[in-house]
Amino acid sequence: MTSAVAAEAKEQTMTDEDRRVFEGLFAPQVIALVGASSDEKKHTSRPQRSLRRHGFQGKIVPINPKRDEIFGDKAYPSLLEVPEPIDHAFIMVPAAAVPEAIEQCIQRRIPVATIYADGFAEAGPEGRKRQEELVARAQEGGVRLLGPNCSGVLSTKPSSALSVNAAIEQLDITPGSLAVISQSGSMTGGLLSRGLGRGVGFSKVVSIGNESDITVGEITDWLVDDPETGTILLFLETIRDAPRLAAAARRAVEAGKPVIAYKLGRSDVGRSLAASHTGAMAGSAEVSDAFFNAHGILRIDNLEAMFELPVLLGHHRPSQHHRVAVMSTTGGGAATVVDRLGSMGVEVVTPSDAVVDALAGKGIDIPRGPLTDLTHAGTRADVYGAVLDELVASDHCDLVLAIAGSSAQFQPEISAGPLVRAGNHGKPLAAFFAPHAPEALAQLGESDVAGFRTPESCADAIRAWSQWTLPSPAPEVDGRAIAAVASTLSAMQGRRPNERESADVFGALGIRTAPAVVVPDDAAPDSVADLDIEYPVVAKILSGDIPHKTDAGGVVLKIQSAEALAEAIRTIRENVSTRHPAANVDGVLVQKMESGLAEVILGFRRDPEVGPVIVLGAGGVLAEVYKDIAVRVAPVGIEEARSMIEQVKGLAVVRGYRGLPAGDTEALAQAVVSLSQLADDAVSEITEAEINPLLVLPEGAGVVAVDGLVVSSPQK
Amino acid sequence: MTSAVAAEAKEQTMTDEDRRVFEGLFAPQVIALVGASSDEKKHTSRPQRSLRRHGFQGKIVPINPKRDEIFGDKAYPSLLEVPEPIDHAFIMVPAAAVPEAIEQCIQRRIPVATIYADGFAEAGPEGRKRQEELVARAQEGGVRLLGPNCSGVLSTKPSSALSVNAAIEQLDITPGSLAVISQSGSMTGGLLSRGLGRGVGFSKVVSIGNESDITVGEITDWLVDDPETGTILLFLETIRDAPRLAAAARRAVEAGKPVIAYKLGRSDVGRSLAASHTGAMAGSAEVSDAFFNAHGILRIDNLEAMFELPVLLGHHRPSQHHRVAVMSTTGGGAATVVDRLGSMGVEVVTPSDAVVDALAGKGIDIPRGPLTDLTHAGTRADVYGAVLDELVASDHCDLVLAIAGSSAQFQPEISAGPLVRAGNHGKPLAAFFAPHAPEALAQLGESDVAGFRTPESCADAIRAWSQWTLPSPAPEVDGRAIAAVASTLSAMQGRRPNERESADVFGALGIRTAPAVVVPDDAAPDSVADLDIEYPVVAKILSGDIPHKTDAGGVVLKIQSAEALAEAIRTIRENVSTRHPAANVDGVLVQKMESGLAEVILGFRRDPEVGPVIVLGAGGVLAEVYKDIAVRVAPVGIEEARSMIEQVKGLAVVRGYRGLPAGDTEALAQAVVSLSQLADDAVSEITEAEINPLLVLPEGAGVVAVDGLVVSSPQK
Repeated sequence: MTSAVAAEAKEQTMTDEDRRVFEGLFAPQVIALVGASSDEKKHTSRPQRSLRRHGFQGKIVPINPKRDEIFGDKAYPSLLEVPEPIDHAFIMVPAAAVPEAIEQCIQRRIPVATIYADGFAEAGPEGRKRQEELVARAQEGGVRLLGPNCSGVLSTKPSSALSVNAAIEQLDITPGSLAVISQSGSMTGGLLSRGLGRGVGFSKVVSIGNESDITVGEITDWLVDDPETGTILLFLETIRDAPRLAAAARRAVEAGKPVIAYKLGRSDVGRSLAASHTGAMAGSAEVSDAFFNAHGILRIDNLEAMFELPVLLGHHRPSQHHRVAVMSTTGGGAATVVDRLGSMGVEVVTPSDAVVDALAGKGIDIPRGPLTDLTHAGTRADVYGAVLDELVASDHCDLVLAIAGSSAQFQPEISAGPLVRAGNHGKPLAAFFAPHAPEALAQLGESDVAGFRTPESCADAIRAWSQWTLPSPAPEVDGRAIAAVASTLSAMQGRRPNERESADVFGALGIRTAPAVVVPDDAAPDSVADLDIEYPVVAKILSGDIPHKTDAGGVVLKIQSAEALAEAIRTIRENVSTRHPAANVDGVLVQKMESGLAEVILGFRRDPEVGPVIVLGAGGVLAEVYKDIAVRVAPVGIEEARSMIEQVKGLAVVRGYRGLPAGDTEALAQAVVSLSQLADDAVSEITEAEINPLLVLPEGAGVVAVDGLVVSSPQK
Repeated sequence: MTSAVAAEAKEQTMTDEDRRVFEGLFAPQVIALVGASSDEKKHTSRPQRSLRRHGFQGKIVPINPKRDEIFGDKAYPSLLEVPEPIDHAFIMVPAAAVPEAIEQCIQRRIPVATIYADGFAEAGPEGRKRQEELVARAQEGGVRLLGPNCSGVLSTKPSSALSVNAAIEQLDITPGSLAVISQSGSMTGGLLSRGLGRGVGFSKVVSIGNESDITVGEITDWLVDDPETGTILLFLETIRDAPRLAAAARRAVEAGKPVIAYKLGRSDVGRSLAASHTGAMAGSAEVSDAFFNAHGILRIDNLEAMFELPVLLGHHRPSQHHRVAVMSTTGGGAATVVDRLGSMGVEVVTPSDAVVDALAGKGIDIPRGPLTDLTHAGTRADVYGAVLDELVASDHCDLVLAIAGSSAQFQPEISAGPLVRAGNHGKPLAAFFAPHAPEALAQLGESDVAGFRTPESCADAIRAWSQWTLPSPAPEVDGRAIAAVASTLSAMQGRRPNERESADVFGALGIRTAPAVVVPDDAAPDSVADLDIEYPVVAKILSGDIPHKTDAGGVVLKIQSAEALAEAIRTIRENVSTRHPAANVDGVLVQKMESGLAEVILGFRRDPEVGPVIVLGAGGVLAEVYKDIAVRVAPVGIEEARSMIEQVKGLAVVRGYRGLPAGDTEALAQAVVSLSQLADDAVSEITEAEINPLLVLPEGAGVVAVDGLVVSSPQK
C-alpha cells in the first residue's frame, strides 16, 4: 500500500492534541508575542495592533526583556515568567534566538509556536540544518511549529488577526466561508485584499511558511472539519506533504468543500523563482496537475478565478459529465468566453430538441447551435428568464453560462434578476456581463450565482470545473507481481540492476521483453555460432554502471549473422574497456531485433513533490521536442491508462488515425497499469524505471520492451 | 507587386471625397434619421436622444412619412423634402426599404449613409446578393455605405453619438485618445463601458457592420490622420480588407499610433460563432497572427488588456529588443506575472552589473536573478524609487515591470509615487499591484504608466509588446523567376498543372526537384530498360486530375530494377484506368528515390482573409498531429524564412539537436523565400502550391522536392 493510500485509510477524526494545536492557531485564549516591539514602525509591533483592531477577545502577552508593558499589555522578560497557560506563541525574534524561545515553549507546554524569522531552509544548506534541528527538538518537546518564514495566521470567527502583515492589520475583514493557505507570505495580504475588494468573506488565512512541521496538507485536513470554512484556496509554489494533502483533498470532496489550487511554476523562470524564493524544489506543471486531478483538487490559472470559482461550485461535488450550455444577448460578448472554452477543450453543447420545443411553445425561437444568442429579443426579463430556466432544468447540459450585453449595465433586472431567481441549485450557473456592470454583479453577489468580471476568469473557472472529477479509489495491487519484483531485487543484494535484471523486473510485472541471451565476459566471441537465436539481432553491453550505452560504443544494431555478431562483440568489449575501464560489466546482451507500429516511452518515478508517477510518451526524438507526454499519479487502473493513451497526440498513429493499422493499445494500457504498480511501498527502493522504447505491435500482438532500466537505491 | 504593397505605396493623403465621408461620419452638421420613431421604446427612437444627450451641436432631421415632428425636431416624409444639404443619413428602415432610401441619398448627393438593418450578407446567399446590388448602386451614385448591420458611429470631439445602442445613449462618455472599431455591434457598448469604467477616454467608436463598402482598413487609415486619436483598437471576427488594413497599420506605426487587435476565432467553436454571427469566413488564428505581425498590429488575447496596453505603449514605436526587467516587493505577487511571461516566451533579464553596482553605491543590495525582489526592504519610497530609476535608465532592458504588494493598497506613495515620477518616457513602464489597490491605480491613471488589474492582462500586454516589431519592407521579387513561372503557366493554356509541370514551376523559382523521366502512356512498359536512370526509383501516375495518387493505386516505391519498373507501370496503368477512368493521364513519372535528414511541407496559398501566405511545417503524419507549422504573409525575405525554420519545433532534428547531423537549413530558407514569391500579382492565377515532402539534405547539399503540386485557377 502506498503512503498516500495509507494516509487516506487512517481514521480522520482530529486527535485531542490536534484539536489543541488547531485552537491554538485559530481560536487562542492567550497569545504570547515573543520579540514584540514597542516601536510602531517595526513589523514586530504589528500583531498587537492587528489583534486589537480586529476585535481579539483573548489575552495578549508581549515578551520583551526590556519592557514591563507594551501598548498597554503587561510584558514579560521570557515565556517562563508568564503566569497563565499560553495557547500560541508567535516568535518574532531573529533566527539565532529562535531555539531558545522554542525551549521555553517546551517548558511551558505551549501546543503550537509560529516562527516569523527567515534564514532557515529557504536560505540554503546551513539554514536547512538549523531548521531540521529545531523541528527535531520541538517534536521531542511536544510543540508543533508553523513556519519558519511565516507572516502569521488569521481567523475571523473567533477573531484572531495574528500577523506582521500590514494589509491584514489595515483591511476591514469580512467573515465568510473562504479559507486561504499561502506559501507566499507576501501574497496573503494580496489575496485577502482582492477577495474583500469584491465582497468575498474569509474564515481563515494562513501563511504556511517553510512547512517545517505543520504543512498545507495538515491545515487542509483540519479545515475539512471546520464549520466556518466552505472552500479551501491554496496559493502554492510547491507540494511538500503530498500524501497528507491528497488524503485531505479526498475528504474535502466527500464533505462538499472544494479545494482550489493556484500553483506557480508553469514556466522555467517561474519554477526558478519558486525555488529561490522558498527553498522549494518545484517540479513540472504536468506532475502537479496529475496530482491535483487524482485527488479532486481544482487547479486554476487565473488569479481572479480564485474568488469566482467557489461561488460557481457552491456545494456541488464533481459532475460526471461536463457539457456547457451558453445563452447570450450579445454574440460578440459571448464569443469572448466561448472561444476560450473551445481552445481549452470544454464541450459547449447545442440545446436539445426538448428545450427548443418547450421555448417555441412559449413563443420564443432560439437558434440551433452551440450559442443560444437571443440578440435584442433577449433584452426582456421574461424572455431571458424563460430561456435560462429551460436550460437550467434540461438534462442536456451540466452547467449554464449566461451572458448579457449592455442591458446588464443599465437594466440589471433583465439578466441579473432571472439569474438570481434561478440560483445555483440544480447545476452550476455562471454569468458574464460584457460591459462594466458593477450593479448587476452586486445583485449576483447576494445570490449563489457566480458573476465573472472577465471572459478569461470565466473561461478558466469553467475549464477547472470541467476537469474536476471524483477521485478514483486507488487501484488494486497485484500482490504476486510485487512479491516477484521484490524477490528479483533482493537477489541483487543492493547492486544496481543491469538491463537484463531490469527486464526480469518488467517480466515479473507481466511486461514482455524482446528475447535475448547473455554472452558472458569470459566467453569467446566466436562461440556465438552456437547460440539459439533468430537473426537479425542487436548486441548491447550489459552493465548497471553504463546508462548511455550508445555513447559508450556499447551497441551494435542490425546484426545479420553469427560472424557479424562475433565481430560486434569484440568491438563492444574494446570500446567499453577503453571508455569505461572501471565499469562493472556483466557481459554482452544479444537481443532479437523487433519492430512495431510505434515506439513509446513508459516511465515510472518517485517524484520529490508528489510521489510515485507514471509517464507515457510518444517515442523517438520528436516526442522529446514536442513534450508529448501524459502523466498520472501511480498506481493507475486500466481506465486511467486508456485515458493516458488518448492524451498522447503522437499515439494517433496506433489509434487508427488516417487509416493506419491499429496497434495493440489495450496491451499498452495493461503495460501502463503494470509498471505503475512499482508505486507500492513494498518496492520503494525502486526510484525510477523506464522502458524506452516499448514497441506497440498490431492489435492482438501485444507490446514488447526493447530497452529499459530500473534504478534502485538502498532503502533508508 | 502584390496588392498589399501596392496599397502601401499609394499616396496616403485623404482625398476631398474621403474627407467629406470622414466628416459626414464623425463631424456631421446635418444628420438625417431615416425611419426615426416617435415611440421611445423603439431602438429607432434612440439616436435622437443619444445625439442630444451627448451634446450634438448640429441639426437632426427625422425622416418619417407619418409625422411632422419627432421629439421637437421637424420631420420630413423623405430625404427629398429636406431643405438643407445632409452630411450623413442613418438609415433605420427594414432591409426591403433600404434601396429606396439609398436612391434618395444619391439624389440628394449625401456623401455617406449608415445602414442599421440586418438581413444582408450575414443572412445567407440571398442577403449577400441584396447587399452586392445595394453597394453597386451606391458606388454608381457616389454614396459611401457604412454597414449594413451597423449599430452606429460615435465621435466625442465634436460630439456625435449616432447610435441605436442603449449603452451609448446612457453612458457618460469621456473624450480621450482611444478609437474603437468593432465588427460586433453588441460589443461596442461593452467595450466603451469597460474602458470608461476604468477611466479611459475615447475619440471615436465605430460599429463597422458587414463592411459592404467602408471597411475596418479604411476607417483605420483615416484615423491615422485624426488628431483626436492616439491608439486604434480593433474588435475583430474576421479580416475583410487585408491590403487596406495592412497599409493603414503600417502608416499607423510610422505615426506612433499603435493598432491593437482582439480577434475572435482561436478555437473551432469560436470560428463557427464568428461565421454564423456576421457571415464572416473566419480563418485560422495562425494566419491572422501572421498578418498582424507582418504589419505591426499588436494582437492581444486578454480583453482588459485592450485598455491597459495603450498606456504601456504610449507613443513608442516597436522596440528592437524585448528584454523585460522585473522588480517587486512581493516574490509571490511577482511570480504570478513572471511565470506567465515565461510560459509565453518573453525574456526576463537579470540586472546588469552596472545596475547592481550603482544601487550598491546607494546602499541598496539587490539579488542576482531575473526577479529583483526587494522584499520588505522595498517598502520605502526612496528604495523603490532608486531601483526603479536605475532600471529605467539602464540599457540592459527595454521594458520595466514594477510590482508591489500590500504597501500599494495602503501607502500608494511608496510604489505609485516613484512610478508616476519615472513615467513612460525612455521605455514602457508597467505596474502590477498584488492587492486590490484602486487608489494606487488611480494615481497611475493620471500618469503615463500602465497599471494592470490582473497578472493575466499584465502578462498578455507585455507579450503583445514583445512580439511587436517594425513591419519589414516587402522583400524584392526576383522578376526573372516570376517571368519564368508565368511563361510556364501560359504554356499550359489553362490546364491544371500535373506534378511534372508543377516541378517546372518550382524549378523556375530555383527549387530543385528529384530527377525524373516521363514514360508516356503509349510507351511499352518494357521500353524502360533503355531509360537513363539510377535505381532505386519511384513510379507515380502523372495527372493533374488525380490529387491523391497513392489512394488511386498510382504510386509504387523502392523499385530496384528495370524489370520491376516495367511491372510497376503495368500495375499503375491498370489501377488508374479502373479507379479514375475519366482522368486525363500524362504518363507515368519515374523519379530517383531521394533521402534526406528530414522531410518538410512547404506550402503557399492565397488565404481568403489575409491574402498570400507561406506555410512551413515538419513533414510526416506526426507534424499533422502536432500542428507544428510556421505561417507568414508572403512574400518573405531570408531573415523571416530563417525565423520560420526556428519556429517549427520538429525541425530541431536538422538544427543540430542532440548531436544529430545538421541539415542545409540555409537552402531550406532560400526555398521558403522562393516559393513565397508566388505572392506576386503577375502569377495571381496560382491559388495554391505545395511541396510535400521537401527533403532537407545535409549542410551544403541543399534541399530537394520529391512531390508537389501547383493549383491554378483561370484569372478573373
